[in-house]
Amino acid sequence: MTDMGEDRVRHAGMRRRICAADDAAGHIRHGMTLATGGFTPSGTPKAVPRALARQMEEARQAGMPFTVRLFTGASTSPELDGGLARAHGVSFRIPYNGDPDMRGRINAGETAYVDTHLSRLAPWVRAGFFGKIDVAVVEAAAIREDGAVVPTLSIGNNKTWLDMADKVIIEVNEWHNPAIEGLHDIWAGDTLPADRRELPLRRPEDRIGETVLHVDPDKVAAIVLTNEPDLNASFRETDGAARAISGHLMEFFRHEVSRGRLPALLPPIQSGVGNVANAVMAGLAEGPFDDLVAFTEVIQDGMLAMLHSGKMRAASGTAFSVSAGASALLNREMAAFRKKIVLRQQEVSNNPEIVRRLGCIAMNTMIEADIYGNVNSTRVMGSRVQNGIGGSGDFARSAHVSIFMAPSTAKGGSISAIVPMMAHVDHVNQDVQVLVTEQGLADLRGLSARERARLIIDRCAHPEYRPMLKDYLDRAEKGVFGGETPHLLRESLGWHQRFIETGSMRA
Amino acid sequence: MTDMGEDRVRHAGMRRRICAADDAAGHIRHGMTLATGGFTPSGTPKAVPRALARQMEEARQAGMPFTVRLFTGASTSPELDGGLARAHGVSFRIPYNGDPDMRGRINAGETAYVDTHLSRLAPWVRAGFFGKIDVAVVEAAAIREDGAVVPTLSIGNNKTWLDMADKVIIEVNEWHNPAIEGLHDIWAGDTLPADRRELPLRRPEDRIGETVLHVDPDKVAAIVLTNEPDLNASFRETDGAARAISGHLMEFFRHEVSRGRLPALLPPIQSGVGNVANAVMAGLAEGPFDDLVAFTEVIQDGMLAMLHSGKMRAASGTAFSVSAGASALLNREMAAFRKKIVLRQQEVSNNPEIVRRLGCIAMNTMIEADIYGNVNSTRVMGSRVQNGIGGSGDFARSAHVSIFMAPSTAKGGSISAIVPMMAHVDHVNQDVQVLVTEQGLADLRGLSARERARLIIDRCAHPEYRPMLKDYLDRAEKGVFGGETPHLLRESLGWHQRFIETGSMRA
Repeated sequence: MTDMGEDRVRHAGMRRRICAADDAAGHIRHGMTLATGGFTPSGTPKAVPRALARQMEEARQAGMPFTVRLFTGASTSPELDGGLARAHGVSFRIPYNGDPDMRGRINAGETAYVDTHLSRLAPWVRAGFFGKIDVAVVEAAAIREDGAVVPTLSIGNNKTWLDMADKVIIEVNEWHNPAIEGLHDIWAGDTLPADRRELPLRRPEDRIGETVLHVDPDKVAAIVLTNEPDLNASFRETDGAARAISGHLMEFFRHEVSRGRLPALLPPIQSGVGNVANAVMAGLAEGPFDDLVAFTEVIQDGMLAMLHSGKMRAASGTAFSVSAGASALLNREMAAFRKKIVLRQQEVSNNPEIVRRLGCIAMNTMIEADIYGNVNSTRVMGSRVQNGIGGSGDFARSAHVSIFMAPSTAKGGSISAIVPMMAHVDHVNQDVQVLVTEQGLADLRGLSARERARLIIDRCAHPEYRPMLKDYLDRAEKGVFGGETPHLLRESLGWHQRFIETGSMRA
Repeated sequence: MTDMGEDRVRHAGMRRRICAADDAAGHIRHGMTLATGGFTPSGTPKAVPRALARQMEEARQAGMPFTVRLFTGASTSPELDGGLARAHGVSFRIPYNGDPDMRGRINAGETAYVDTHLSRLAPWVRAGFFGKIDVAVVEAAAIREDGAVVPTLSIGNNKTWLDMADKVIIEVNEWHNPAIEGLHDIWAGDTLPADRRELPLRRPEDRIGETVLHVDPDKVAAIVLTNEPDLNASFRETDGAARAISGHLMEFFRHEVSRGRLPALLPPIQSGVGNVANAVMAGLAEGPFDDLVAFTEVIQDGMLAMLHSGKMRAASGTAFSVSAGASALLNREMAAFRKKIVLRQQEVSNNPEIVRRLGCIAMNTMIEADIYGNVNSTRVMGSRVQNGIGGSGDFARSAHVSIFMAPSTAKGGSISAIVPMMAHVDHVNQDVQVLVTEQGLADLRGLSARERARLIIDRCAHPEYRPMLKDYLDRAEKGVFGGETPHLLRESLGWHQRFIETGSMRA
C-alpha cells in the first residue's frame, strides 16, 4: 500500500484511509442519509456506488432491508441512481433524477421524490430542513498535502456535503489531468441567512473564492482510488426540428439587437442540454455574435467547441455534460480550458441574484405549453414524472429573457406540445417571455392572455392541431365563465385524457 | 399665483409649471402610454386622474376615442383605476390591478392585462420591452430648491417613470408632514444589466441610496397642488378563521425555533395585506418574538403598531396599506417613524437577491391550493382574474420559508380552498413550504407528492371536503396512469365545473 496513490493523495493522514471500494461502502448502512457528488455523470463517484449497489442487492436477497435516503447535485449516472434503484435501495431522493430505473421507482410510489429548485437544496440542508447527512461520497482529482480536496468535473453541493456529513468517503480519480486544479471557484459565503453577504460576482468569469474544497480529515472514513472517465451521455443527432428552432432563435436575437432591446454583445446565456440545445449552440457558433459568455448550469459540447474556437469568451457552470470525445479533449487541454471556465457550487451557478444581475438569456426545453404561455417541463400527462424541474426555475424567473422550446409535436404527431390546458405547471406565464417550436417563435412580452393564445397558436402550434386550438379558444371566449383567461373546464384536459385512452391527442 | 405652493415647490423654474388639474391632464392624449405612481392608494396621484377620467368621459360622450395604456406601481385607487375604467379609458394595464371596475373591463376582454411580477416591470421598461412612456404622473410631498422630488407614501416604479417619460406631471400634496423627507431610499443601481452591481443591502433598515428622486426640470410639463390624504382601505374585522390561521403560524414559528431551524430572532418577514395578514400581525404583536424586522412590499396597520410599540425594530417596503386612523398617526409622528421605516423602489423592495440573502419568511394569501401543494392566488375557477400575482412570486421563490394561507372554505362552505387540481397555477409546489388554513398547518418540506397530498388533506382541508379529497387521491393512486403525482384527468377539474354549474363544489 505504500506507494499507491501517493501522487494524488498527498496528505499523509488521509493516505492511511485508502481502502477497497467494498470496505468504503461498508460505512453506509440501512436507513442512512447518503449525500453524493455528481451533476449529470460528471463528477459522479463510481466505485463506491457500484459496491453499495452490490451490497444492497446481497442484503435484499438475504431478506435484509437496505435502503438509503439519497441526496445529490442533480442527475448522476446509471451506476449510482440506476444501480441503487435496481437494488430497490433508495427510499427518498432529492433534488433531481434523470435515470430511467430510478424514475420507475419514483412513479411506482416506492421512492419518495422531492423535486427541488437546484439552487435551494444546499441552503435548506444547512438550515436543518431535511435532517442530518450521515455519509458523503464525493469524487476528487487529488488531495493536497494540506488536506484540501481538488474536485473533478462537477461541484454540485459537494461543499455542503463535506461540511455537514458525519463521515466522508472520497474517490480519488487518477484519470483526471492534474491541471484541473484551478478550474473551480468555491465560495465561502454559503452560510445561514443571518450571516449572508452579497455574491460579489459581476461577470461569468469572476472568481470569488478558493479553488479547492476543505474537509475535516478526522471525518474522512475512507479513500478509494479510481482511474476512469465519467460515463458520458451520447447525444442524439440534431434533427430538422431542432435546427429550425435554432434558426428562429437566431433571427430573434438579431431582431432584438437591431431594435436595441438586447446589446450586440449578447448577455450571458444559460442553456439546457440535449438535441435542441445542441442545435442552438451550433446556431450561435455559426452566427454573428462574438465574445459570447455563458452563465449556466451545465457546460456541454457546443459551449466547449465555442470556447475552443474563441467564439465564446468564458463559461461559468457547476458541471459538464459532454460526449466521450469532448470529455477527452477537455481533459487533454485542461490547462487551456481552465482559463475560460469556472465551476461553482450549484447554489452559485444557479443563483437568482446573479442570474438577474447579469441579465441572462435563459433557454430551456419543455414537454408542453398551454395556449396562455404556461409551461410543463416535468410531468407527462400531469402524473408521470420525467426528470424534474432542475435549475430551470432558478433561471427562468430571474432571467432577462426566458425562452422555452420544444418541437411542436411528439410521438409521431400524436402529442401536441401546445395544448389548451396542462395538468401540471412548472413555469407560470410570467416566467415565459418567448416560446419556440420548429413552426415559429412567439414573443409573449406585453401581451394579454387572449393575445398570447392567438400568437402561440399561430406561430408555435403544429398546423394539424391549430384548428382544434382555435376552436377551443373561440368557444372558451364565448363561454359563460369567460374572463381574462378563458377556459372550458369540461374539455380543457380532454386532449391529455384522449392520449391516455387512445394513444393520441388527435380528435 | 405668486405665493401659491412656495413652501412645497421651492424650485423657481418648476413653480412656473403650477396649473390646474384639468390643464395638466390635457397633456395626456388618446393612445398615449401613461405611467403613474401609486402602490395601493398609497402615493397614488389624485387630482390629475380625476380630471383625466372626466376628460375621457366627455370624449366618449362626444364619440371621440380616448384610451391610454396604463402602467403603475401596483393597484392604485378607485379614482385612478376605477375612474379610468368607468370611462372605458384603458386599453392596456400593467402590472397589477385590484379595482373592481378595472377587473370588469379586463375580464370582459376590453382591457389587455399583463399580470407581471412586480419587481420585473421597471427593468423591462428600461430595456425597451414595453415601448416608450409618454407621460408620467407622480405624487410628491415637496420639490426642493435643487429640483429634487420628495416622494409621498409609495415609491413603486416612480424613479423609472421619471427617468423614462417624455413628459412629467407632478402632484404636490401639501397634506403630508414635511418630516416625510428622509423616509425614502432611492437606489441608483437600476441600470441595464450590463452595468448592474450588487445590491449592497444586508439588513432591512440599510440605506443604500438617496432620499429623493430626480427629474429633468425641462420634462416637467405641469405641477398640480393638492391637499388630501390617500383613500385608505377599510379592513374587514379579523374573524375566527383568521385568528386560527395566525395561531397555527405562531405555533409553527415557536416549534421551528425550538428545533433550531429558525433563529430566535426571526428572519425578516414579508406579509400580504388583508384580514388574515392582520390577524398574523396581531399574533406576532402578542407573541414571544422581539426585535422583529420586516422586508416586505406593503407596510400595514399591524406593522405600524409594532413599530410604534417597539416590538418591531425596522420595516422596509415600497408603500403603505393603512386605515385612515393609522394613516393619520403615521403622518403626525412621521419624524419618529422615518427612523424605523425605509421605502424603496419596488424592484428593490421585492428583489429576489435581497429576499434570498436575508432569508425572508414570506406569508401570502391564496385562493386555493391543490392536494400536491401548488397554489392559485389569482384566477377564480381558472378563468376570471381577481387581482394579479403581484409581488407574491418575487418573494415565494426566494424566501427561506414560503407560507401560503387561506380559510379552508369560501362562500359559506360552497367552495373548498383545497381541491384535487386547479385550472390555474401561480405558485408551483417547490415555492410552497407551508400551507395553513384555520383547520391546521401542513409543513410540506421534504415530502413526496403523495405524502404532501395526505398531509394537506388531513391538516388543511375542511372536514366536509376531506372524504371527497381522500377518495380522489385513493382512486388516482390506483389509476392506470398513476405516477408520481397521481391524477384522474376526467374528474380533476370537476369540482370547479360543478361550482360553475351549481354554485357549489359539494357533490
